[in-house]
Amino acid sequence: MKAKPILGFPATSQDDYQLNVINIMRQAAKSFGRQEIVSINLDGTRKRFTYRETYARTRRLGNALTGIGAEVGDRIGVLDWNDNRHLEAYFGIPGMGAVLLLLNLRLSPVDLGYVINHAQTKYIMVDETLLPIAEGVAANCPSVKGWIVLTDKDLSEINTKLSPVYSYEKLLEEASEEITWPVLDEKSAYGACYTTGTTGRPKGVYYSHRNVFLHAMTIAANAEMSNSDCYYQLVPMFHALGWGMPQASILVGCKYVLPGMYNVADLGSLAEPLVSEGVTVSAGAPALFMPMLEYIRNLEVKPDLTGARFLSGASEPSLALMRDYYKLTGAEIVHAYGATETTPLVTINKIKPWLKKELSEEEQWDLKRKQGYPVVGLDVKVVDHEGKEVAPDGKSPGEILIRGPWITGSYHNAPGSEEQFTEDGYWKSGDAGTMDAEGYMKITDRVKDLIKSGGEWISSVDMENEIMAHPAVLEAAVTGLAHPKWEERPIALVVPRPEFKDTVTADDIREHLAAKFAKWQLPESVVFVDAVPKTSVGKFNKKVIREDYKDLYIQS
Amino acid sequence: MKAKPILGFPATSQDDYQLNVINIMRQAAKSFGRQEIVSINLDGTRKRFTYRETYARTRRLGNALTGIGAEVGDRIGVLDWNDNRHLEAYFGIPGMGAVLLLLNLRLSPVDLGYVINHAQTKYIMVDETLLPIAEGVAANCPSVKGWIVLTDKDLSEINTKLSPVYSYEKLLEEASEEITWPVLDEKSAYGACYTTGTTGRPKGVYYSHRNVFLHAMTIAANAEMSNSDCYYQLVPMFHALGWGMPQASILVGCKYVLPGMYNVADLGSLAEPLVSEGVTVSAGAPALFMPMLEYIRNLEVKPDLTGARFLSGASEPSLALMRDYYKLTGAEIVHAYGATETTPLVTINKIKPWLKKELSEEEQWDLKRKQGYPVVGLDVKVVDHEGKEVAPDGKSPGEILIRGPWITGSYHNAPGSEEQFTEDGYWKSGDAGTMDAEGYMKITDRVKDLIKSGGEWISSVDMENEIMAHPAVLEAAVTGLAHPKWEERPIALVVPRPEFKDTVTADDIREHLAAKFAKWQLPESVVFVDAVPKTSVGKFNKKVIREDYKDLYIQS
Repeated sequence: MKAKPILGFPATSQDDYQLNVINIMRQAAKSFGRQEIVSINLDGTRKRFTYRETYARTRRLGNALTGIGAEVGDRIGVLDWNDNRHLEAYFGIPGMGAVLLLLNLRLSPVDLGYVINHAQTKYIMVDETLLPIAEGVAANCPSVKGWIVLTDKDLSEINTKLSPVYSYEKLLEEASEEITWPVLDEKSAYGACYTTGTTGRPKGVYYSHRNVFLHAMTIAANAEMSNSDCYYQLVPMFHALGWGMPQASILVGCKYVLPGMYNVADLGSLAEPLVSEGVTVSAGAPALFMPMLEYIRNLEVKPDLTGARFLSGASEPSLALMRDYYKLTGAEIVHAYGATETTPLVTINKIKPWLKKELSEEEQWDLKRKQGYPVVGLDVKVVDHEGKEVAPDGKSPGEILIRGPWITGSYHNAPGSEEQFTEDGYWKSGDAGTMDAEGYMKITDRVKDLIKSGGEWISSVDMENEIMAHPAVLEAAVTGLAHPKWEERPIALVVPRPEFKDTVTADDIREHLAAKFAKWQLPESVVFVDAVPKTSVGKFNKKVIREDYKDLYIQS
Repeated sequence: MKAKPILGFPATSQDDYQLNVINIMRQAAKSFGRQEIVSINLDGTRKRFTYRETYARTRRLGNALTGIGAEVGDRIGVLDWNDNRHLEAYFGIPGMGAVLLLLNLRLSPVDLGYVINHAQTKYIMVDETLLPIAEGVAANCPSVKGWIVLTDKDLSEINTKLSPVYSYEKLLEEASEEITWPVLDEKSAYGACYTTGTTGRPKGVYYSHRNVFLHAMTIAANAEMSNSDCYYQLVPMFHALGWGMPQASILVGCKYVLPGMYNVADLGSLAEPLVSEGVTVSAGAPALFMPMLEYIRNLEVKPDLTGARFLSGASEPSLALMRDYYKLTGAEIVHAYGATETTPLVTINKIKPWLKKELSEEEQWDLKRKQGYPVVGLDVKVVDHEGKEVAPDGKSPGEILIRGPWITGSYHNAPGSEEQFTEDGYWKSGDAGTMDAEGYMKITDRVKDLIKSGGEWISSVDMENEIMAHPAVLEAAVTGLAHPKWEERPIALVVPRPEFKDTVTADDIREHLAAKFAKWQLPESVVFVDAVPKTSVGKFNKKVIREDYKDLYIQS
């Protein structure tokens, strides 16, 4: 049960002042008017704007949207690369009171159409290079009343089936720079992103202005950004509000560089701005930092990025990636964790000063592989099968639950999704992990990959890795099977290396596991097989394993 | 008129999650459990606590207060130096739902008694060294139900007339460490400070939890603090919530050093921790930094404080102070501006990166004397007599108006104080200043020292300084006199240097002023006198001048 807040003694503060995200840009344009925003074109040339100019364009956008009929509360989609118009949309759309619906250009047409319809989107801003994607879904999106084409060309040069279409630049040109932004209740939606899990339809997270404002402050404080920094917006702006970095960057008044449309295969164009623009902060998945590192590796003179911090999320950065960035450029990869549902910052991994003294260099590198400690402002806990916090020993696995002002409390209009929240308001991340005594969290599995045994959890991924570390083993899959007493018990399917086929035994495997696992965690059944059932994309098909062996522990 | 907020599309965020300041410590104790809090004793020895230990003491405090009868909404006063118990009070009192009333130990007994009564204070925590102050007001404070003595001694060793008295340490010892903090509506008062203007009774500013939480995040972002920093709490914790630094420090998880009871005359003990504790951030008035600099000047080996930032507020730091800190230690004095009514951070002066390139070193030092640019999150404007924003030219004077989530919207129970707020919700600071094209603000006068002429303002202080720069002038006072057409017009009282007594003329003075002031600003009347009327503390007594010459412009 959520506690009902108690009203104490009345304060005199301006608590009715609403946190509106447009204020970030409005105030930053005043305090950092000449700071630079750089948007890189496909041919490598650059558009350069000052904050003052970008804010003027943002005001024009607000008026232009009202001019074509957009109203407070409307959902306006954006299908765009990371460029200056996308940034203007980040402020102009929510500024005039509409909802910035960020559209993932990698979605299948079916899912993209679903998202547009689910949000009942009224207008869509689409980059000219992405018109084919928009055209592919337009016929199935009856709510859309118009398409705003993001292009430097005249509309007459644009060949599209979409209708009606507007030119973004023309609309801005004709709109006034004078605007009085509406004062929005801070609980109004600022923008929305849809999560795309592996199962089911995308689910909508609608971030309030309050949520986004508080998250921007949190990023600024935790990434230690200031107006002396230069931020490089690598992470796609359609992913979890661009990880909240656009708003945080403008909040602190730093230089802001947008890579535009980029091709991960074109390593040079992605890495080049690091030096030419003087990047000091960036954020993205290892999949982005990896190809840039490849490019840097081949440079004769390595760029000096000493002091730069690259936030890395989405998946665990490899030790090699972190080491090599540091060794070759001086830049630090900072591991962080979050999700669409968390705006996203939940944990960040900085080595605390006392650990810098106590741990060896090797131990510090190893620590950097953890997702980090929770940022202040959030309630984060790792709970066992019964909802009790696990021991902070860096070993006991549990599910990660998160609560706080920049965490979603529901999914928009998604019946049945309530089970992803606890009664006391935590979002159940579905991620399983551990917490250590220093507060560093480590994600180990998805919860569905954990085996529930007698109220405790056993990590199937850990056990698989450990079995596969045995010299006689080629491949191993571990999953849980229903058990009358313990709820579930593990089974291990093991493919031995040909030369050990006739010698390795189940006891060998259990003995090997005993070095790392408690006795009660060891699998009763270790079954030697010729091959592990796999899905079409090559992952272990645990569903089939569970079906094949479903009665194993029930009969016994 | 304040705009009524409009509710847009509903969001899915956890907007009902209340910003409670105790969460800062609760969460920081988890993420930074082993970080250090150092409290310096009078004899120079130090108490050392981890965050985890301090949070445990804070929980005990919460329970102890409830145990003696404190309830949600009660006002609990603290009369203490900057020590660990003061910090515990900063979190424990508001944590259990009461209001942390910070008592200025420099107040006169009359004012202190007024504040305690005005707040209807229920309990007062008082350091044993400050018992005489408490005893001096106790008889006139009928609302106080008990006194909690802050001491390491046994109560039996404490000789006091106060009754009933409790021992803080004994209460903590007997209280449980287990607590479930109430969830407070974030609009509940966290704490209160009373302003002590030169006129009238102290006025109460009651900060909400929301206010304090947002301000802490703003400090963290703007002072660029992190858990690698060591903050030194120089500014008294009874001044404007200790400038919000305690909450910001714990938020980022930095090392936190409390000087305890200190004597500005004892330079060594105040400056010594800079090196011995590794201070990287501090905050205080120039009056604090000045004696520390004197001490450093006399050291044979100057401390290396490279990279340290000392926020300086309350009055303008001299150029010499800023230069010498930098030259002798590498520490940077960062000029900032605020007031009790603003929690306090309003502006901060960092040299923006492009100005570092464009301005000469001299010009940069000169720029550092300005109060700085407004931090993002606040609406700050400089307005003329009619409420219109003045030109951002670094010259046009106006009154500084401030609005935002950490600005007070009223004074607690202070009839007649409404006039310090505009209809659209700005607090009128009473400070006059200018804004330049880069957004840097400069405080020049108090508004009451400005002359209102035809809807424009003339700075009397500027004009006085300019007249006194004339070689023939010993002293000059400028003030406004009522005028039938222009509302007010300036008069200058000039004391000539003896050798120029018979030669200097009113036109000489006006001509001299014309180099810096517009023609319409020049005083019609330049009156040569033998002496300017002064107050008992030696300031120009403008009230007397205005009285003496009140009909001058009305008759003409």
